[in-house]
Amino acid sequence: MVAGPGLLFVVSGPSGAGKDTLVEALRERLPRLRYSVSATTRQPRENEREGEHYFFLSRAEFERRMRDGELLERREYNGNLYGTPRGYVVQSLAEGYDVIMKPEVNGALAVKAAYPDAVLIFLVPDRFTHLRERLLARRTETNEEIARRLEIAHQEMKFIRSFDYIVVNEQGNPEQAVRDLQAILQAERFRIHRYPDDSIRRVESS
Amino acid sequence: MVAGPGLLFVVSGPSGAGKDTLVEALRERLPRLRYSVSATTRQPRENEREGEHYFFLSRAEFERRMRDGELLERREYNGNLYGTPRGYVVQSLAEGYDVIMKPEVNGALAVKAAYPDAVLIFLVPDRFTHLRERLLARRTETNEEIARRLEIAHQEMKFIRSFDYIVVNEQGNPEQAVRDLQAILQAERFRIHRYPDDSIRRVESS
Repeated sequence: MVAGPGLLFVVSGPSGAGKDTLVEALRERLPRLRYSVSATTRQPRENEREGEHYFFLSRAEFERRMRDGELLERREYNGNLYGTPRGYVVQSLAEGYDVIMKPEVNGALAVKAAYPDAVLIFLVPDRFTHLRERLLARRTETNEEIARRLEIAHQEMKFIRSFDYIVVNEQGNPEQAVRDLQAILQAERFRIHRYPDDSIRRVESS
Repeated sequence: MVAGPGLLFVVSGPSGAGKDTLVEALRERLPRLRYSVSATTRQPRENEREGEHYFFLSRAEFERRMRDGELLERREYNGNLYGTPRGYVVQSLAEGYDVIMKPEVNGALAVKAAYPDAVLIFLVPDRFTHLRERLLARRTETNEEIARRLEIAHQEMKFIRSFDYIVVNEQGNPEQAVRDLQAILQAERFRIHRYPDDSIRRVESS
């Protein structure tokens, strides 16, 4: 998959982290941010609308799209298939839009494997402690301690190194988490590693 | 040098990029940001004050401090020595303050070599083009083209890969560059790679 000028952001994390609310708030503020709707073979829940929450597909249709290269990645979760429609993401990035999605943790890893340029953000809830302040103030805390405070499951903690950022959603203060996410989306545009390696090498060896 | 909870930011780039103004604006807005004053053996210019612009040292005193480990790094520029006093940086980071400095390009690289955790920001002036917009919109541009637009000298371009970010200071719109810098300072707090490697490995292997 060829990198477009837009950036792909993947927000994931333990359930109850508040992904839906925060991503919705980001979309309202950032007109150049598009949302990638996942495809799934699971049954729609009440109030879930086709094309808004998911593209609901039969297993046969899902497999056909995967075979025909129409999905960026696929993974199984709770006995159902989930995947990212390729066309919308590729076209949006090519047009210079940023794209955001919010799969579960193994989905985030699958997206990163298919598109290493993706920026992965691990979002965690904070119901009990002043966690964000603590993370800011005390980088010496071990990751085990962080995991305990963050209520991150052991299994998810294993994968956390594949993520690029960790953002804390403090109960009662989603505005702060939205601003942290906005700072990340803005700052990532200016990261030098995004400029093509080969052209830099050419300059260096000349 | 042991990493403290604070982060070290190094703003550098070609002359005329507007480092002084932007760093000053950042310091006014961010009370937890401290400025590291360099030591130098060059003569003070008019209006330069000891301890504010530089610590002006004799060559003998500079060399003694380097020998005694009181400088984080040293480098020669235009026949004069420049260096970063270690104590102020180490103590500020340990107390949770972020620290910013604005050495010339080879100084930024020397700081990175001495303190790899430093975040290096390459600041470039933009007098003629709508460069920031172009960088945001067109990541496919080659680095040679970017260098031409950015008026980056060939020598400096060689080193650009050691930097983490590139920020454009558009003429007449310093506010935008300040906001870009602020986003970077904020976002960097949440980067997962800042959490101790060994504690993560321990979790992974358990």
